Amino acid sequence: MFEKHNPEIGSRPGTLAIPPDSPFPKITVVRYDEQSVERIEIQTPSELKALHDDGRTTWVDVQGLGDEATLRAIGDAFGLHPLALENAVNVPQRAKTESYEKHQLIIARTPRIDDEGNMRTPQVCFILGEHYLLTFQERYFGFFDPIRERINAGLGAIRLRGPGYLAYALMDAMIDRYYPIVQGLSDALEELEEIVLENPHPDVLDRIRELRRKLVALRRVAWPQREALNAMLREQTTFFDEQERVYLRDTYDHIAQIAELIDSSRDMASDLAEAYLSNVSHRTNEIMKVLTLMASTFIPLTFVAGIYGMNFEYMPELRSRNGYFVVWGVMISVALGMAYYFKRRGWIGTSPPPDFESKRTEDPNQ
Amino acid sequence: MFEKHNPEIGSRPGTLAIPPDSPFPKITVVRYDEQSVERIEIQTPSELKALHDDGRTTWVDVQGLGDEATLRAIGDAFGLHPLALENAVNVPQRAKTESYEKHQLIIARTPRIDDEGNMRTPQVCFILGEHYLLTFQERYFGFFDPIRERINAGLGAIRLRGPGYLAYALMDAMIDRYYPIVQGLSDALEELEEIVLENPHPDVLDRIRELRRKLVALRRVAWPQREALNAMLREQTTFFDEQERVYLRDTYDHIAQIAELIDSSRDMASDLAEAYLSNVSHRTNEIMKVLTLMASTFIPLTFVAGIYGMNFEYMPELRSRNGYFVVWGVMISVALGMAYYFKRRGWIGTSPPPDFESKRTEDPNQ
Amino acid sequence: MFEKHNPEIGSRPGTLAIPPDSPFPKITVVRYDEQSVERIEIQTPSELKALHDDGRTTWVDVQGLGDEATLRAIGDAFGLHPLALENAVNVPQRAKTESYEKHQLIIARTPRIDDEGNMRTPQVCFILGEHYLLTFQERYFGFFDPIRERINAGLGAIRLRGPGYLAYALMDAMIDRYYPIVQGLSDALEELEEIVLENPHPDVLDRIRELRRKLVALRRVAWPQREALNAMLREQTTFFDEQERVYLRDTYDHIAQIAELIDSSRDMASDLAEAYLSNVSHRTNEIMKVLTLMASTFIPLTFVAGIYGMNFEYMPELRSRNGYFVVWGVMISVALGMAYYFKRRGWIGTSPPPDFESKRTEDPNQ
Amino acid sequence: MFEKHNPEIGSRPGTLAIPPDSPFPKITVVRYDEQSVERIEIQTPSELKALHDDGRTTWVDVQGLGDEATLRAIGDAFGLHPLALENAVNVPQRAKTESYEKHQLIIARTPRIDDEGNMRTPQVCFILGEHYLLTFQERYFGFFDPIRERINAGLGAIRLRGPGYLAYALMDAMIDRYYPIVQGLSDALEELEEIVLENPHPDVLDRIRELRRKLVALRRVAWPQREALNAMLREQTTFFDEQERVYLRDTYDHIAQIAELIDSSRDMASDLAEAYLSNVSHRTNEIMKVLTLMASTFIPLTFVAGIYGMNFEYMPELRSRNGYFVVWGVMISVALGMAYYFKRRGWIGTSPPPDFESKRTEDPNQ
Amino acid sequence: MFEKHNPEIGSRPGTLAIPPDSPFPKITVVRYDEQSVERIEIQTPSELKALHDDGRTTWVDVQGLGDEATLRAIGDAFGLHPLALENAVNVPQRAKTESYEKHQLIIARTPRIDDEGNMRTPQVCFILGEHYLLTFQERYFGFFDPIRERINAGLGAIRLRGPGYLAYALMDAMIDRYYPIVQGLSDALEELEEIVLENPHPDVLDRIRELRRKLVALRRVAWPQREALNAMLREQTTFFDEQERVYLRDTYDHIAQIAELIDSSRDMASDLAEAYLSNVSHRTNEIMKVLTLMASTFIPLTFVAGIYGMNFEYMPELRSRNGYFVVWGVMISVALGMAYYFKRRGWIGTSPPPDFESKRTEDPNQ
Repeated sequence: MFEKHNPEIGSRPGTLAIPPDSPFPKITVVRYDEQSVERIEIQTPSELKALHDDGRTTWVDVQGLGDEATLRAIGDAFGLHPLALENAVNVPQRAKTESYEKHQLIIARTPRIDDEGNMRTPQVCFILGEHYLLTFQERYFGFFDPIRERINAGLGAIRLRGPGYLAYALMDAMIDRYYPIVQGLSDALEELEEIVLENPHPDVLDRIRELRRKLVALRRVAWPQREALNAMLREQTTFFDEQERVYLRDTYDHIAQIAELIDSSRDMASDLAEAYLSNVSHRTNEIMKVLTLMASTFIPLTFVAGIYGMNFEYMPELRSRNGYFVVWGVMISVALGMAYYFKRRGWIGTSPPPDFESKRTEDPNQ
Repeated sequence: MFEKHNPEIGSRPGTLAIPPDSPFPKITVVRYDEQSVERIEIQTPSELKALHDDGRTTWVDVQGLGDEATLRAIGDAFGLHPLALENAVNVPQRAKTESYEKHQLIIARTPRIDDEGNMRTPQVCFILGEHYLLTFQERYFGFFDPIRERINAGLGAIRLRGPGYLAYALMDAMIDRYYPIVQGLSDALEELEEIVLENPHPDVLDRIRELRRKLVALRRVAWPQREALNAMLREQTTFFDEQERVYLRDTYDHIAQIAELIDSSRDMASDLAEAYLSNVSHRTNEIMKVLTLMASTFIPLTFVAGIYGMNFEYMPELRSRNGYFVVWGVMISVALGMAYYFKRRGWIGTSPPPDFESKRTEDPNQ
Repeated sequence: MFEKHNPEIGSRPGTLAIPPDSPFPKITVVRYDEQSVERIEIQTPSELKALHDDGRTTWVDVQGLGDEATLRAIGDAFGLHPLALENAVNVPQRAKTESYEKHQLIIARTPRIDDEGNMRTPQVCFILGEHYLLTFQERYFGFFDPIRERINAGLGAIRLRGPGYLAYALMDAMIDRYYPIVQGLSDALEELEEIVLENPHPDVLDRIRELRRKLVALRRVAWPQREALNAMLREQTTFFDEQERVYLRDTYDHIAQIAELIDSSRDMASDLAEAYLSNVSHRTNEIMKVLTLMASTFIPLTFVAGIYGMNFEYMPELRSRNGYFVVWGVMISVALGMAYYFKRRGWIGTSPPPDFESKRTEDPNQ
Repeated sequence: MFEKHNPEIGSRPGTLAIPPDSPFPKITVVRYDEQSVERIEIQTPSELKALHDDGRTTWVDVQGLGDEATLRAIGDAFGLHPLALENAVNVPQRAKTESYEKHQLIIARTPRIDDEGNMRTPQVCFILGEHYLLTFQERYFGFFDPIRERINAGLGAIRLRGPGYLAYALMDAMIDRYYPIVQGLSDALEELEEIVLENPHPDVLDRIRELRRKLVALRRVAWPQREALNAMLREQTTFFDEQERVYLRDTYDHIAQIAELIDSSRDMASDLAEAYLSNVSHRTNEIMKVLTLMASTFIPLTFVAGIYGMNFEYMPELRSRNGYFVVWGVMISVALGMAYYFKRRGWIGTSPPPDFESKRTEDPNQ
Repeated sequence: MFEKHNPEIGSRPGTLAIPPDSPFPKITVVRYDEQSVERIEIQTPSELKALHDDGRTTWVDVQGLGDEATLRAIGDAFGLHPLALENAVNVPQRAKTESYEKHQLIIARTPRIDDEGNMRTPQVCFILGEHYLLTFQERYFGFFDPIRERINAGLGAIRLRGPGYLAYALMDAMIDRYYPIVQGLSDALEELEEIVLENPHPDVLDRIRELRRKLVALRRVAWPQREALNAMLREQTTFFDEQERVYLRDTYDHIAQIAELIDSSRDMASDLAEAYLSNVSHRTNEIMKVLTLMASTFIPLTFVAGIYGMNFEYMPELRSRNGYFVVWGVMISVALGMAYYFKRRGWIGTSPPPDFESKRTEDPNQ
């Protein structure tokens, strides 16, 4: 989960630990104000310097972290604190927020199913300044396309407001991605509920464990996200104004609800695992019980047969004409007696299910 | 539990995610002051504009969320923050409270047994302004009828006070609904206490699990409710005055007590499940023990019989006239010896229950 | 545990939910100052009005809640907040404290063994005003008799101080009642410690569970009591002065210590249950092991006997004169061989208990 | 653990609950300043009055609480609050600190192995005033002898400072006593680590439980001690000055470290118990498996022998000259076939232990 | 883990408890400012006095604590508080920070694999003054070599800043050492994931336990480290300025992430242990089930054979010419009947694994 590529021990702060398989940075700039939108594909980072600080909101989206020179040039263009740049490149990290003098750093992560069907939680780093927002993504993801379209279309408040609102909108889009994935895991658990009772195949337990593992992985990502949003709401920074804070609080509610849904699904997974194990153990007990009872019934009978298989010369019963039939009678009596005894102690046959009086199906409040 | 219908990812804040099966809104307005009560059924939302802000307390109850235009019209009439309206429509959410500039949003949930006997926890959204209270319900529920009658009858303080007191009264009525449902679950658990010891049928465990699942579901609703009430008591808003806060504190005590009752019932469910499992395991052990002992007694006897069933030509015992009877004697001795040994080691028969001296039934304080 | 009798859903705040089996109120007033004590049995609540506010400390003890008119009359006489009166009557509630403008409400509960030997936790409601203290008890209990005697005798500081000190003294007496009951449960657990190892009868587990259930019930009462006392120490009310706060802190220490004793006893109960189960499982294992070994020894022997019980016409061994004895020899060798093998693998006989060098019995600090 | 001797229920605050077996008080006074030390054995408590308040630091050490008159006389001599005296005598209590107007009360407890080898946690009560320190011990313990020697020798800062520093030194000596006892328990657990794997004797589990019980008992004493020290550091009392607070913080670190060591030892005890149980269960499984396999091999063989032990007149095989040998052949084939099947399914013989590649034994940081 | 060497009980504060096997101190001083670096090997501690307080940053690295006189001389040279020196020498301690008037004490620990492959967590004590930094190491470790090289090379900010930044750089290097070790443990656990399912050898469980034990040991070191860093960030000391605090916050994030990685690995270890146990129990169940079924099939057959092995003179079946073949027929019918019954109840053969519809491998967000 956390395959980190750390800088060497004892290296200077600000050393960039670039993930080895990250592609070359692709830099897209979107600048807008109420009237206009402009989209620029940056070829050489030196072009960035000119973009800084001209009144309009400038969003620089960096996809791919594979070239240190480019990254350092971006850092220089916007005057980033060396630790901010180190954080932006360092993958993966827990969601957090960090305030520097001239900008605020936010790390957010969102779940994603990759092409092999594995769940990943790629990270986006936001660096939010007075007039600009930088976003750093490890790879070429399409998370932000809907927002880009909203900017182009000029719908809603997004063009009327600054980079704080933009950062909110992007984070909100990232957090909305949790719902369908958590819901999918929850649905998969519900599907298992029936199977657990009908077919206690070992695969079912593996499947429950796999789903729980995914939920736990999501939880590890969602909770720091929640904490980071809470910290952004509490801290009095200049990068989000009061109105944007109202929107952030809404995003906070979303992630809080997702965290809760994850927790309730995880409880459900534990309940299912428990039900599975108790079902398996009940079946094993049933087998052992029935077979032990059968064995126990035959053991004394076989003993009786053994007795009259002995070759003593003088065994009076053997000569009796009815001996054989009497022995059969004795054996059947013993078998019936034992069956009766087992029955009476409740060892054979299942007792009828109890009747639960209070299985009420009406609302007591009516 | 949380079948959410979320807006599309990346959509603008304020997008309404209307639950697909929610009926068309039915809008009922009650306006009152100390002297008079007026009840109006709104047909077109444009009528609402006129109602706003005329000194009397205006309660607008919206049942059903099935039409976006109507909802937006309500939002316009009362100048609601777009996020407030989004929250009002978004079903289900955890109980919470949120302060906007001109109104306070409160989400509350209450348990309900639907027609199929399933427990649901429908949500009501309160939007509380200076002179008005809006309530949004997903469906046509009758939760608020007793309060409506109290307003009509003019009993108690309800007509003397503003929308804050009304919001308190409605929330209190919602929280009172928990008691009989939690009590019903608790009674059902108590009923199981006897059954667990007498009839360890697998259904009993399923029943315990079902009750525990319901308790857990209630707990997930009751705890955020408790937190939300606590937040309303702590925050210094203008929508509840000092006297109404005293009443809210009382409601807080109710939900706190319900939460405690849920927790103690859940503990009881766990205890019952444990007692059930230990009872089942005790029974299985008893079966295995008795039968193993029986088998063990016959095994050496059958061996002896096997010995004298051998066909060797020269086996001196076989010729002896008393051989057969001696063998019977040996077998009976072996059986008795083993029974004695089992008895002495405490493997046969249950020891008498111990006598607990200190089973005191008197109050040591007398 | 919480058989509550709630007012109807949606009823007005201040509605009294009188416990259905509560007897008719018996009202006893004690008024005192440094010089004199007066005891009055109130027949009609209207007499109370005259008693209010004449400088002396007035203690009104109401036993039984069975008449709404009487309770309302008391509320009127002392100008109680409607919620305060509702709280006083509402049985049972968790221990808490609540400040109203002119009085402070305190709910306290104390354990009691009733005539059938069941543990109950009846509740007393204190309403503490400037010059008076009201106490409401569900039934005719004798909890407060020692304090009444101290007032009559004029011992200690009780007559020199106001209703705050009286409330402290009464609560302290209620909390002192926990000690012997918790101690009794703790003693009962200690008595079980021996029995668990000697006689693993199922009743022992039931007994442990019963004791633990009682401890859990006490815990549920003691912890809110502790919190309520803590809240009273923290809040800056006018009803307890600095000196009385010192006494309350002492009471807080008592309940904290009781809570701790309950917790340690509960841990002990869990340890005992675990020891019981491990003892039972050890015994079952012993039985199964011994018997399985015995069965395993006889199985090959019986097979050998079976071989020579076959009726083939040509079986050379059968003709041999020593065949029979050789077979006996083989059987005895096999049995000894297996016994030796079982012994060597440590399956027969228990290994000697290990010697724990460091079982030190001296204080290392000497 | 907590054999308390409480005053009667409802008795006045300040009632002394003297432990019944506590010896007669032996009072030793040490008075010192930078220049001189004086040691006085007090015979009658009236002598104490004269000692109070003459500028020098006065340490009154009371060993034994067995005489109420003496204790009251001490209380009078130093003007103690009645609750302070009650607390000093009340044994046992949790460690705590309590500030009165003119003195501060501190309860501390330290572990001690008594003459029968049982671990006890006797309590010392400190009452710290402007110029004096009172210490109350239940019995004649030697805890404080090293400090007395330091005062006599005049080493270090002890003679230069007042009763606050003396109280610190005494508490520090009490807390230092935890180390060797906790270390002893930890060593005993480490010794068990080997035994658990080699000799799964039931005594081992009992021993683990006994050690864990002791650790839990120590934890219950150490944690309140830690809290009490923390409270002393936080509160702004006049009895410890800033410099003494630095020393107290050091003592706080010691008890925090002890608490941590106790917790890690307790975890180790749980790990050992788990390892023990898994070892026992592995052994039992081994026995059952081997024996079940053996039984299963012989069951079909015995059946074959049974077939040819039947006495039908017409059984063609019996007449065949090679029948007997063919049957032997069949039996051996069946036995080998089953052995092969068991082997192939991995039921016989233990698979070789897996090879853990990454069992690295080098520091990856080199 | 905590083999402490404490001073005698009751000894004066400031007594040095020198670890018995710690080597003689080797003192290396590095002094630097922006222009120059100087490295001095101190032979006699008296040389230190001259070094103190000349404007440049002075780093005194003490490796080995084996001589009290030397340590005391260092303490005198820098005017250390006696408790600070005691803390520096006291090994091991939990990570913490402590502010004295003229210097701040920091205890940090870092994991290390020693030559025998055991994980250790040696401790470094930092004493940070206005112009100097003292570091005390128990042994001759090479932890700080990379920093020493950075000072020599003059790379980055290290030469431009004071001892606060130096302390940060050293601590950061210590905390970076956690990553590869925790990663190594995490990799080892991942390697086990396959083995657990394929080869349930008892060694696997031991290996899991060993890895978990190491993770727990690391956790016990990492968490106090995290707390200590947090305390350093919160406290307003003069030894770290605002800019250095930004760096410290980065280090705090590292240790927080390490703590999280440890926790997730520990959860993984628990999951693996659970999977191992469930795998073993599944295998045992399989063996028992197959063999019990086999035994049960042969038991009635053997009984039938026993019947016709009886030697009664008059047994009509024995005379029948087809008796033998009829008996074979009966036996085969019984065996098939039982096999059919076992099959129908699902006791023989494993049911096919269920098909999980929702095993989705696509991102629902596309």
